[in-house]
Amino acid sequence: MTSSPKLPHPATLTTSVPAPDIVRCAYLDLVVTDLKKSRDFYVGLLGLHVTYEDDEAIYLRSFEEFIHHNLVLRKGPIAAAAAFAFRVRTPEDVDKAEAYFKELGCRTERRKEGFVRGIGDAVRVEDPLGFPYEFFYEVEHVERLHMRYDLYSAGELVRLDHFNQVTPDVPRGRAYLEGLGFRVSEDIKDSEGTTYAAWLHRKETVHDTALTGGDGPRLHHIAFSTHEKHNIIQICDKMGALRMSDRIERGPGRHGVSNAFYLYILDPDGHRVEIYTQDYYTGDPDNPTITWDVHDNQRRDWWGNPVVPSWYTEASLVLDLDGNPQEVIKREDKSEMAVTIGADGFSYTRAGDDSGSYHGEASKGFKLGSQV
Amino acid sequence: MTSSPKLPHPATLTTSVPAPDIVRCAYLDLVVTDLKKSRDFYVGLLGLHVTYEDDEAIYLRSFEEFIHHNLVLRKGPIAAAAAFAFRVRTPEDVDKAEAYFKELGCRTERRKEGFVRGIGDAVRVEDPLGFPYEFFYEVEHVERLHMRYDLYSAGELVRLDHFNQVTPDVPRGRAYLEGLGFRVSEDIKDSEGTTYAAWLHRKETVHDTALTGGDGPRLHHIAFSTHEKHNIIQICDKMGALRMSDRIERGPGRHGVSNAFYLYILDPDGHRVEIYTQDYYTGDPDNPTITWDVHDNQRRDWWGNPVVPSWYTEASLVLDLDGNPQEVIKREDKSEMAVTIGADGFSYTRAGDDSGSYHGEASKGFKLGSQV
Amino acid sequence: MTSSPKLPHPATLTTSVPAPDIVRCAYLDLVVTDLKKSRDFYVGLLGLHVTYEDDEAIYLRSFEEFIHHNLVLRKGPIAAAAAFAFRVRTPEDVDKAEAYFKELGCRTERRKEGFVRGIGDAVRVEDPLGFPYEFFYEVEHVERLHMRYDLYSAGELVRLDHFNQVTPDVPRGRAYLEGLGFRVSEDIKDSEGTTYAAWLHRKETVHDTALTGGDGPRLHHIAFSTHEKHNIIQICDKMGALRMSDRIERGPGRHGVSNAFYLYILDPDGHRVEIYTQDYYTGDPDNPTITWDVHDNQRRDWWGNPVVPSWYTEASLVLDLDGNPQEVIKREDKSEMAVTIGADGFSYTRAGDDSGSYHGEASKGFKLGSQV
Amino acid sequence: MTSSPKLPHPATLTTSVPAPDIVRCAYLDLVVTDLKKSRDFYVGLLGLHVTYEDDEAIYLRSFEEFIHHNLVLRKGPIAAAAAFAFRVRTPEDVDKAEAYFKELGCRTERRKEGFVRGIGDAVRVEDPLGFPYEFFYEVEHVERLHMRYDLYSAGELVRLDHFNQVTPDVPRGRAYLEGLGFRVSEDIKDSEGTTYAAWLHRKETVHDTALTGGDGPRLHHIAFSTHEKHNIIQICDKMGALRMSDRIERGPGRHGVSNAFYLYILDPDGHRVEIYTQDYYTGDPDNPTITWDVHDNQRRDWWGNPVVPSWYTEASLVLDLDGNPQEVIKREDKSEMAVTIGADGFSYTRAGDDSGSYHGEASKGFKLGSQV
Repeated sequence: MTSSPKLPHPATLTTSVPAPDIVRCAYLDLVVTDLKKSRDFYVGLLGLHVTYEDDEAIYLRSFEEFIHHNLVLRKGPIAAAAAFAFRVRTPEDVDKAEAYFKELGCRTERRKEGFVRGIGDAVRVEDPLGFPYEFFYEVEHVERLHMRYDLYSAGELVRLDHFNQVTPDVPRGRAYLEGLGFRVSEDIKDSEGTTYAAWLHRKETVHDTALTGGDGPRLHHIAFSTHEKHNIIQICDKMGALRMSDRIERGPGRHGVSNAFYLYILDPDGHRVEIYTQDYYTGDPDNPTITWDVHDNQRRDWWGNPVVPSWYTEASLVLDLDGNPQEVIKREDKSEMAVTIGADGFSYTRAGDDSGSYHGEASKGFKLGSQV
Repeated sequence: MTSSPKLPHPATLTTSVPAPDIVRCAYLDLVVTDLKKSRDFYVGLLGLHVTYEDDEAIYLRSFEEFIHHNLVLRKGPIAAAAAFAFRVRTPEDVDKAEAYFKELGCRTERRKEGFVRGIGDAVRVEDPLGFPYEFFYEVEHVERLHMRYDLYSAGELVRLDHFNQVTPDVPRGRAYLEGLGFRVSEDIKDSEGTTYAAWLHRKETVHDTALTGGDGPRLHHIAFSTHEKHNIIQICDKMGALRMSDRIERGPGRHGVSNAFYLYILDPDGHRVEIYTQDYYTGDPDNPTITWDVHDNQRRDWWGNPVVPSWYTEASLVLDLDGNPQEVIKREDKSEMAVTIGADGFSYTRAGDDSGSYHGEASKGFKLGSQV
Repeated sequence: MTSSPKLPHPATLTTSVPAPDIVRCAYLDLVVTDLKKSRDFYVGLLGLHVTYEDDEAIYLRSFEEFIHHNLVLRKGPIAAAAAFAFRVRTPEDVDKAEAYFKELGCRTERRKEGFVRGIGDAVRVEDPLGFPYEFFYEVEHVERLHMRYDLYSAGELVRLDHFNQVTPDVPRGRAYLEGLGFRVSEDIKDSEGTTYAAWLHRKETVHDTALTGGDGPRLHHIAFSTHEKHNIIQICDKMGALRMSDRIERGPGRHGVSNAFYLYILDPDGHRVEIYTQDYYTGDPDNPTITWDVHDNQRRDWWGNPVVPSWYTEASLVLDLDGNPQEVIKREDKSEMAVTIGADGFSYTRAGDDSGSYHGEASKGFKLGSQV
Repeated sequence: MTSSPKLPHPATLTTSVPAPDIVRCAYLDLVVTDLKKSRDFYVGLLGLHVTYEDDEAIYLRSFEEFIHHNLVLRKGPIAAAAAFAFRVRTPEDVDKAEAYFKELGCRTERRKEGFVRGIGDAVRVEDPLGFPYEFFYEVEHVERLHMRYDLYSAGELVRLDHFNQVTPDVPRGRAYLEGLGFRVSEDIKDSEGTTYAAWLHRKETVHDTALTGGDGPRLHHIAFSTHEKHNIIQICDKMGALRMSDRIERGPGRHGVSNAFYLYILDPDGHRVEIYTQDYYTGDPDNPTITWDVHDNQRRDWWGNPVVPSWYTEASLVLDLDGNPQEVIKREDKSEMAVTIGADGFSYTRAGDDSGSYHGEASKGFKLGSQV
C-alpha cells in the first residue's frame, strides 16, 4: 500500500495572502462500499440522525448540530475519505481559502453550488500533505435536535468533535496547519526531537484535527462526542449485545493527550470512529501546549492500557479531487509503535523509575510485557 | 508454589446436620506486609473508612456499611488471606456452622469473644477446599455513613460485594457450597463438561463468592461496589494521576458473567481488588442460572477486551487456623487461559462464525490475535 | 371520595398459622381507562417491555425481569389498582397465605389457574387494610433482557422496586405487615407518638411496600428503578421534549427516607409512578431502623425541596375482589402535610436552630416560607 | 434598596473606535463580609482550589483553569461584586477597551500593575449599565489541574462558565453588549415586544454573561461548570449532609434556555452561585438565536418546576470604581415573575392548550397552580 515518495506536494507552506478564518471541522465526506451496512452502523448502532438519504448517499448529523450534516456516507467502489470539510467564518473566507491554496501550489476546485447536498459555495483542495480539504460558509440550517430528548438514545452522539489524519512528516504537517491558523494544544515527542503526533484546533477544544505520524495521507479516524462517559459505555454494551465486540478496536479509556474519555470502533469498511467526551477549553490565546514523552506509558491511555498495533498501522485511504486514492507515502521518521512496544521499544509508568519500565523482552511489568 | 495434593480435605461434602443460615459475605481478614503502604492504598487511594486502627491492624468499612468492618488489614510476615468471614442470621447459626463443619471432618475453632475487634462469638474453619471461613452473628454496629455525602469521594466504595476464590476442582467446590446453602447464579463450562468457574450467592446479588478454577486454595480477589460506573472510572483516573497505572491489572470493562461493570487493581502486596457495580437481582427461588461457553469471547469481558494472563495465574495465599499458608494444589482440569488464548486455545465473538474466531497463531482477528 | 368508616376489616392482626414466606413485590394489576393512552405512557415514554398484549390488557416487564410481568394494564371503567402481587418462596406458601388471611377473617379467593396471564396458582385477598393482595409462586419465565443493550433506552427502567399504599392508621398497618413477615427499614414520626409513614421490606432493599398515612385504602404509587441517576434525569428531559412536564409531579430529588434518588410522574389516569435508584442493602437481620422526625425538612427531600400538596392528597382507588372500588376511610391521625406546611405546621432544616425553622406565616426562610 | 434613576449612564452605546476582542469571562472580584465563612463555602463545600490566600483575600480557581484565578473573595464591609473581569485577546485590546469606554463616556481606571494579584495591565470601567467591568490580557499562569484526579472531588467545579447580571432595561443592555462584540444565543420575550432576559457569549458556549430584567445594576449570579450531571447532584447531597439545604435556592433542574443542567445555591452573604453543565456549541457565526415565550412554563425549567420568587427578586449589589455600591435603578418594564405566576400572570405547558395553562386563581394544574 505504501510507495516511495514522488513528491507531488509543494515545498513551501507559507503564503503572502492571508489564511481563511476557519471556524471548525464541520463534516466528513466518506466513501463506503455498502450503503446498507454503513447505515446499520451509523444510524442503527450509533444513532446519528438522517437529514437526507437516497440510493447513493446518506447525510447524517449529530444531536446538537444545526448545519445540514456532519457526515456524508457515499456509495463507492473503494472505501476512502473524499473530503475533510471545514466551516469558515464568512463567504469571503472561501475566496481566501482558494487563493491561499493556489499560492501554496495546490490543486483546487471551486464549486459555487457546492460539492454535496446542503452546502453552497465551496472550494476543495489537495493540500500540501495530500489530503482533500474543503472550505465552505454557506450551509442549509436544519432543526437542531438538542432538546429533542424524545429522540435521545442511551449512547447519543451530540457533536462532531474532530478528524485525525495520518501523515509521514508530522513537523511539516504541523507547520502547514499552523500557517493555516490552527494552534497546537498537545503533541508527543521524544528527547531526540522526533515528533510522533500533534493536536491542532480552531474551535475552543483540544482539536479540530490531529496529525498522527505514519504512512499517509490517510484518515486515522473521525470523532463524535457524547455528553457523558456512560454514553460511551453504552455503545460498548450495545456492541456486545449485537455480538459486534470484534469491531471495538481500543478502549474505552481515558486519554493522556486531551484528557478525554474515548472509544475506538470500526465501521463495516474498517473506517475508524472515535467516541469522545470531556476534553478541556483551549480558547485563550496563550493556552499552554502540553508535550508528552513518547515513552510515557500514560500518554495514549492514562490508565496504561495497551494500544493495539492495528490502531497504529491501519487507516483509511483518502481521495484526490478526481476521486482516486492518493498514493500512500511511507513514514521515514521513527514509529511510535516501534519505540514503545516490542523488542525495540520501551515505556515507563513513572519517569526515572525502573520498576515500571521495560526494555523489550526483559520487561517484568505484567501490564506492558505480558499480554498475549 | 504448587505441589501434588496431600488430600487433607474430607471426601464427603454433605452432612446430617443443617447448614447455618448465611446472610452474606461480611469481611475479609487480610494479612499485609507493610501496614503503612496498605493504608495508603485502601484509605488514601480507595477512600475506605477507618473504624479503628492501631500499629497492628486497620479496620475498614464501606460507605453504606453498619457493621464494624468489611476489611481487616493485619500486619504479618506473609501476604495472605487469614479469613473469609460470613454473617449468619442468628446466634444459633454459629453453633450450626460449627457442628456442620465438624461433621464434614474439618478443623474448627470457636471463640466466644471473637477473632477480631468488633466481632463477637465466631467460629473459624478450614473448609473442605482448604479455605479459612469464619461465621459470626454478633457484631458491633457503627455509624452507617450512607448519607454522609460530606465524606463521599468521587470514587466512593459503598458496599462489600463478594469474594472470589481459586480452587482446583470447581465442581467439588460448587457441591460443597451448594450444600452450605449457596445458590449458583452463573458458571463457565465447555461442551465437554469441564467447569471453569462458578458464581454463588446468599444475598440477592450475583455472588457472595465465586470459584475460579486454578491452583488453590488461593484468594483471587475481594470486591467492593460503587454506586455508578463513573465512580470506577474515577478510580482509574486517580491511579493515573498518582502514576499508579501499572497497578491497574484489568479493565475497566463490562463483565459478561454478572453483567457488572468492573475494574481489577492490585494492592501493594499484590492482593487483587475488584471494583464492581450494577449486577442484577437474584433473590427469587428459581432465579435462572446462566451458563457461558468458555470459548465465548464476551464471557469475561462483554466488549471482547482481553483478559491479561496474570489475572488467570496470580492469586493470594490463604492461611490455615495456625496462621500458616495452606499448600497450593495444582489444578488438574483444563485451564481457562490455555483453552481460550495462545496456541492451544480459541475464542469466538459469534458462535458458529469463523470470521470472528481464531485458532492459535492462525488468527486473523486484530483483537484477539494481534496484541503485543 | 372519603366516608366514615364502616369497619369491614378484622380487629386482630395475628394468627396461629405461619405467615407465607414472601420473596418480593412482583407485579401490580392496574386498571386504566384508555389502554392506548396508557400504552403511550408506559411503553412509549417509559420504555417498559411488552411481554404480551391484546385489546383488553398489556403485560409489561422491566429490563432485568425474568418473570412474565411487573405490571398489568387492564382496560376498565374506573382507574384503580386491582391487585398488589407478591411472589412467595414455594408453591406451599400460597396455601399458607390462603390459610393466614382466612384466619385473619379476610375474604380470599384461590385460583389454581391464576388471575392473570403468565401466573399460575394464586390467592387474592382483601387484606385487613382493605387492599387487594395477591400471592403466587408459579410464573412463566421469559427472556431476561438484562444484557440486551440494543434495547436499552436512555431512561431504562430495570426493576420493579416497590409499592406505596395510603392507609389511615399506619401503626395498625405496620403491625399487620410485620405479622406477615415484613420488616420496617424506616419510618416518620413526631415526638408525640404519631406515625406518619413506614417503609417495609422482604427483599434486601429499603422496601417492597410502604405505608403513607392518609385516607385509604388507596394506591399511592408504584416504583421502578433505574441503574443510575442520569437515567431518571433523561425521563424528565424526555417529558419536557414531549411537552408533558405537567405530568411531572415532584422531583427529581434525593429522598431523606431511603436515600434514593427519585422522581414522581403521573400516568394518563393519574396513577402515580415513581422512578427510583440507589437505596441501600437491608438484608441483615438487625438492619437498623431509621426514624425521621416529621418536622425535619430533609426527611422527604434531602435537599429541602418542597413536597407539592397533591403528593399528599391524591392517590388511586383500589378494588375489592369483585372489582368494585373499596370505600376510602378518612385518616383520623394528624396529617403530615398539615403539621409541616402552612399555617399550622412547621419544619426545620437544623434541629433546634430557629433560623431555619418557621411557624406558619411568620416564616422568613425563602425556601420553606414560599411553599404553599 | 431601589431609587428613581439619576441617569448617570451615557445615552449612546456605540463608538467610532473598535471594540476590544474579548475572549471570555475570566474572574469575578467579590466582596464578602466574613472571609472564613466564605472560605468554608467555596473551598470546603465547593472544593475550588486556592491559588493564594491571606487575611484580606482568597484567590480561587476551577479544576481545569490555567490562569491565576476565577474568583477573588475579598473581605469588605458590604457584600457586593467589585468587578466582572473579562480576558481580551492581546495586550493591545486593553488599550482598545479603555478607549472604547472613554468614548462611551464611561468612567475608566487603568492600572498597569493590575487591580488584583496575578493579573497585570488592566482597565476597569463603570459601564453604561452601571456595572464594574474589567479587561485584561496579562495573567500569571498556574498549574492546570485538569488531570490531577487525586484532587478531584465528587462535585468538582471544572470551569468558570458565566456571569449573570440584573439590569432594568434589557434591550438597552443587549445593544450595549452587542456593540462590545457579544452575540445573543437566546432570549425571553413576550408577544408584545417586552424582553425579559438575554444570553450573550464570546466563547463558544451559550453565554459569558446574561442579562436578567430587574432592578439593577446587580449581580444575579456567577456560574461554574461540572463535567457531568451527577457532580451537581453530589453538591446537593453534600449540602443536605451538612444541613445546608436551606442554602439550595432552586434546582437542580434542566434549563429550557441553554439546555444546561443547573443548580442555584447561596453563599454566606447571599451571593448566588450557579452550578451548570452541558449547554451546547455556539461558535458558528450564524448560530441560531432561540427566543422563548415568557409564558412558556418550560423556558426556565424544562421540567416545569417552579422558579422560587427569591430567584427573581434577590441579587447582589455591585460597586463603583471607588468601592461604593451603585445605586439600584427600578425596572420599569414588566416583571417576568409578575407575568408568569400569581394573580396577574399565566404560564402554559403546551402553547394553545388550555388544559395546561392557568390564569391566576382559576388554575387547575397541580403543578402551576400550587406555586406561590
